Amino acid sequence: MLGIQSIASYLPKGRVDNLEQADRFETDREFVEQKIGVSSLPRFEAEDSVVSASVSAFKNLCEKESVDPAEIECVVLCTQNPDKGGLPHNSALVHAELGLSEDCACFDIGLGCSGYVYGLSVIQSFMAANGMKKGLLFTCDPYSKILNPEDKNTCLLFGDAGSVTLISDTPRYTLASAKFATKGAGSAALQKNDNLLEMNGRAVFNFALQDVPKQIKHVLENAELTMDSVDIFLLHQGSRFMLENVIKRAGIPAEKAPIRLSSTGNTISSSIPLLLEKELNGNPKTILMSGFGVGLSWATAIYTQVK
Amino acid sequence: MLGIQSIASYLPKGRVDNLEQADRFETDREFVEQKIGVSSLPRFEAEDSVVSASVSAFKNLCEKESVDPAEIECVVLCTQNPDKGGLPHNSALVHAELGLSEDCACFDIGLGCSGYVYGLSVIQSFMAANGMKKGLLFTCDPYSKILNPEDKNTCLLFGDAGSVTLISDTPRYTLASAKFATKGAGSAALQKNDNLLEMNGRAVFNFALQDVPKQIKHVLENAELTMDSVDIFLLHQGSRFMLENVIKRAGIPAEKAPIRLSSTGNTISSSIPLLLEKELNGNPKTILMSGFGVGLSWATAIYTQVK
Repeated sequence: MLGIQSIASYLPKGRVDNLEQADRFETDREFVEQKIGVSSLPRFEAEDSVVSASVSAFKNLCEKESVDPAEIECVVLCTQNPDKGGLPHNSALVHAELGLSEDCACFDIGLGCSGYVYGLSVIQSFMAANGMKKGLLFTCDPYSKILNPEDKNTCLLFGDAGSVTLISDTPRYTLASAKFATKGAGSAALQKNDNLLEMNGRAVFNFALQDVPKQIKHVLENAELTMDSVDIFLLHQGSRFMLENVIKRAGIPAEKAPIRLSSTGNTISSSIPLLLEKELNGNPKTILMSGFGVGLSWATAIYTQVK
Repeated sequence: MLGIQSIASYLPKGRVDNLEQADRFETDREFVEQKIGVSSLPRFEAEDSVVSASVSAFKNLCEKESVDPAEIECVVLCTQNPDKGGLPHNSALVHAELGLSEDCACFDIGLGCSGYVYGLSVIQSFMAANGMKKGLLFTCDPYSKILNPEDKNTCLLFGDAGSVTLISDTPRYTLASAKFATKGAGSAALQKNDNLLEMNGRAVFNFALQDVPKQIKHVLENAELTMDSVDIFLLHQGSRFMLENVIKRAGIPAEKAPIRLSSTGNTISSSIPLLLEKELNGNPKTILMSGFGVGLSWATAIYTQVK
């Protein structure tokens, strides 16, 4: 059975001091640190791109795992802000940079904050159906490319990052249960217009509070698990205030749900991978992930450790 | 087992007379009709979009099939020229327009001319892995949005279209064998730069001639089939000249491989769906599809009729 073998990430060197940004926007520093929960933001510089960040994440992966590029049979890259306007698909550009085999399926998927949970299921099911044994799932969605510099709500929130997950037939974690949902009618809450991001923070907050806890409970029931039997809850790091409320509403024990966006901000589809990379060090047996945002789209999955 | 139940398409009302275009570019009309093989091109007008074309294709589907929107559990949309810059994913926008259920997974995939063959495998494997019974695969890639009006090679070639395929657990055709490949190092042959399409026609032609026939033979061997046992070969309609050469090089009986781009042009990921929709009327038992282009990416699959 296919599953997650390993994961690595990349944070660009560029940094934005979010407290200085708070001053510029005449926003209370305490609000930025406590409610948004972000002190500094990783930010792409001129030399960074979706492709270069993905390649850097792969290099970091190779420092912990022995990965033979010749064995990679599938590359899926999740972004909504691709290099070259997405033509070609950025997975093909990464394919070239990593010198992968021609016998390799590559495609991009367009999803936002739910992208990692979706992407894992997409790549695993595609690989299984096509008899593939090793694949790479990349996430990289540099919102800095589309931030309106006058919009404090988004400028104070979003950070740039990338990740890569090695999917293989010798996994550490396999999927136990998942659920995917969409509320397209609410999509205007988070959208690009004339290449600039527009966000209705209140609408996204209300959506997260209303729909995410229900889905988490549903997936737990499907897997015949309780909150107690999950070791760690990896929730999309939308903002500290949103997370605290989702955790409370869902009845998740707070100590099991890390809130860790102080030095990354909301990194869209890379936020759960950043958490997962750290949490795997603790060797959890049962992991619940839940991503929610752009679409509006939300997805929850439970992964269990292979014995 | 999941598979193709039905398919429908949409061609916008807007039209470009390709012979008038030939005159404007001081290009021989005979070359345009005989080598490119395109007399007129469907072209998006101001009111057209990826979402509106997808909705129109769905309406056309509903004229031949009884589709209950409440039963749709998955929507995958293939494009590299999405509305709203792809944020949100256009599948979510289509989800809203069609009034689909919240219990519906939606995501976009970024692929060009190989997109339909990939997309079928992606949606079918994702749906199967997640126990879903009815889904929709859309293709719509309006290159008119990125054509350089001074570039005769691309202006004379690409047309706009859309399609929708109903994937269900009561299919007419199921997948027998498929193969996917990528040559990212060649991707500059077909790419967006500053939001304008650049194409190296010679490089794309050489790639198609060299790699597509080999993959077709490989997939036939995998499925333990010969050219004779395939009823119809649906090849991506790149250009008449390219098609004639691929057909010859692969040793495909010419009468089994329709060349039908005279009034559509090259419609990227919609070109195989446009062929498939027509050819299903002839009730073929065994269908081979092969898509190739942007990436560079190529994919071949064999579908067989359910008895």
